[in-house]
Amino acid sequence: ERSYTLTLLPGDGIGPEVVAVAKDVLSLTASLEGIKFHFKEMPIGGSALDATGVPLPDETLDTAKGSDAVLLGAIGGYKWDKNEKHLKPETGLLQLRAGLCVYANLRPAVVLPQLVHASTLKKEVAEEVDLMVVRELTGGIYFGKPRGFGTNDNNEDIGFNTEVYSASEIDRIARVGFEVARKRNGKLCSVDKANVLEASMLWRKRVTMLASEYPDVELSHMYVDNAAMQLIRDPKQFDTIVTNNIFGDILSDEASMLTGSIGMLPSASIGESGPGLFEPIHGSAPDIAGQDKANPLATVLSAAMLLKYGLGEESAAKRIETAVIETLNRGFRTGDIFSSGMVFIYQLFSFIFFYLI
Amino acid sequence: ERSYTLTLLPGDGIGPEVVAVAKDVLSLTASLEGIKFHFKEMPIGGSALDATGVPLPDETLDTAKGSDAVLLGAIGGYKWDKNEKHLKPETGLLQLRAGLCVYANLRPAVVLPQLVHASTLKKEVAEEVDLMVVRELTGGIYFGKPRGFGTNDNNEDIGFNTEVYSASEIDRIARVGFEVARKRNGKLCSVDKANVLEASMLWRKRVTMLASEYPDVELSHMYVDNAAMQLIRDPKQFDTIVTNNIFGDILSDEASMLTGSIGMLPSASIGESGPGLFEPIHGSAPDIAGQDKANPLATVLSAAMLLKYGLGEESAAKRIETAVIETLNRGFRTGDIFSSGMVFIYQLFSFIFFYLI
Ligand SMILES: CC(C)[C@H](C(=O)O)[C@@H](O)C(=O)O
Ligand SMILES: CC(C)[C@H](C(=O)O)[C@@H](O)C(=O)O
Repeated sequence: ERSYTLTLLPGDGIGPEVVAVAKDVLSLTASLEGIKFHFKEMPIGGSALDATGVPLPDETLDTAKGSDAVLLGAIGGYKWDKNEKHLKPETGLLQLRAGLCVYANLRPAVVLPQLVHASTLKKEVAEEVDLMVVRELTGGIYFGKPRGFGTNDNNEDIGFNTEVYSASEIDRIARVGFEVARKRNGKLCSVDKANVLEASMLWRKRVTMLASEYPDVELSHMYVDNAAMQLIRDPKQFDTIVTNNIFGDILSDEASMLTGSIGMLPSASIGESGPGLFEPIHGSAPDIAGQDKANPLATVLSAAMLLKYGLGEESAAKRIETAVIETLNRGFRTGDIFSSGMVFIYQLFSFIFFYLI
Repeated sequence: ERSYTLTLLPGDGIGPEVVAVAKDVLSLTASLEGIKFHFKEMPIGGSALDATGVPLPDETLDTAKGSDAVLLGAIGGYKWDKNEKHLKPETGLLQLRAGLCVYANLRPAVVLPQLVHASTLKKEVAEEVDLMVVRELTGGIYFGKPRGFGTNDNNEDIGFNTEVYSASEIDRIARVGFEVARKRNGKLCSVDKANVLEASMLWRKRVTMLASEYPDVELSHMYVDNAAMQLIRDPKQFDTIVTNNIFGDILSDEASMLTGSIGMLPSASIGESGPGLFEPIHGSAPDIAGQDKANPLATVLSAAMLLKYGLGEESAAKRIETAVIETLNRGFRTGDIFSSGMVFIYQLFSFIFFYLI
């Protein structure tokens, strides 16, 4: 019997309720697949701040590091929005990503035929969209130094950050991009702002150099402003996108909204070795927390990514994905993806369980 | 008789042909409105590089500075894409913006009822979209120092840029945002990444401080990743957006593509005093240059913005705007905005002239 330790980080807002569903789904899947999970639940984000005074307690990071994979709900909320930087929930998430060295963030944006109506794009533009954003996650302007506050020559207040990438940071994320593209449709689009930024010029140079090692992958380059347009004009032109941390933050959220159902979208963050971090791309949605309204499928699909990319348990991952599709096929919908003729339910969990078996 | 000197900067690709149309429109409008224009045409971008070896010759900047307003076509092309930074066409444009101190870039994204079908968004989402992005244009990561290439402690190549804003830089663009919102529907959304970046934290603090001076404007704040989503989910929620240089680059292009007709969209860049810079938001489109296919209306509407924001000639501006609307109402379309039942033409100029009178 294969046995794994999983760290669960429910976090804030709707985080705890969606992680609870995913945990139950994982447990049932485990028993069906002959896997054993040991769950360790730890605080992060605003709830960790309230409980311990810091957004990422040492015990949380240590537990995460010592486990086989980490499943996160969501962090943040109005309550902590005005906190100083080191006391923001978001800082806990960034420390976790850095602490686990998960430099590659995979964010699929898939328009399922069952949910094509949920997109604000015309049907013919949205249908069959299936792209993957590979976002660099532990470098760039999120972590670059120097950063902070100061004064300039006129004695005025300034705020500053550094966008910086090294050759090896670019190479390792570019390789993930090429590998992912190779397993998909063999098209990689690297997004940068190399007509203005030196950090992007080095990015483009390194990505271009690596291309010769992946002759089966068709590489193209696009400026970030154009990519933001092309995602709306014709999202089907994209297969795999690789980009830096801040551009990836923006473009992956844009891409996810093309699907119209961000309550459905998972993500995986992985490094060279050590546990991966898996989380829904939606936020903590404090306004609907605790009302049994949240769509847990993004977290359930994150659990499937955990099984596939984190543990190599492909058959268990497939079982969950199939159950999600079947649940949708039968017409069950939470409020965020509801349309007429469908069966309105609150959380989807009972139906998922049915289709897991 | 009012008399103005206008600098025309045709630039590259389709730039010369669309500027030529706008020049003719300006000339006819001038004679109808009792205005006199002296045009001075100067090189910029790739064509300046080819002719003079630099992307912004001193004479071009001096002429622009000495005139009442500047109309630019477009710059850039594959031919110069691999040039070193100081020899890129884009560098000429950035030098021009900095040289003219035009720190406020106004980019309207309006879905005209005649062109709502051109959007890839569903009709009910796209119709009546009318928003303005106020982008900071002479600061932030585009110009911040230090910047360049170097090596890190591991002797690896690095590329780096600095995102930096001072209080006064933020205040002056925020004031433009508040003023623009006041003249529109009184709603200003400031977009930043204050949950991660210090430069954004200062941004949010200063914008919030200024709000008390504009009690008639309703201020909100949004993270840039969320803004990229909300523009697709429900663009009508926005009236005026104010944001930094790089976020404004991305979001204004995204917003413009919501309209489906970037061949229609003008922009204005203005400073404290001195001439403003007016340009279509589309690029140089080298693939269709010289084929009489380009839609000149974005440049024609930029000329209208020049009259209105640059010279205070509201009646002349209105005349051009009305002629454009009338041209569309009569069904005349270039290829980029063509739909069935419409009258296909190449460049629209002859019809515009008809409706100017
Ligand atoms: C919460 C925030 C720090 C985070 C980010 O910017 O990376 C989020 O937007 C995301 O994309 O996961
Ligand atoms: C050409 C480029 C330097 C420019 C920019 O990034 O500002 C363009 O994209 C724009 O938005 O006007």
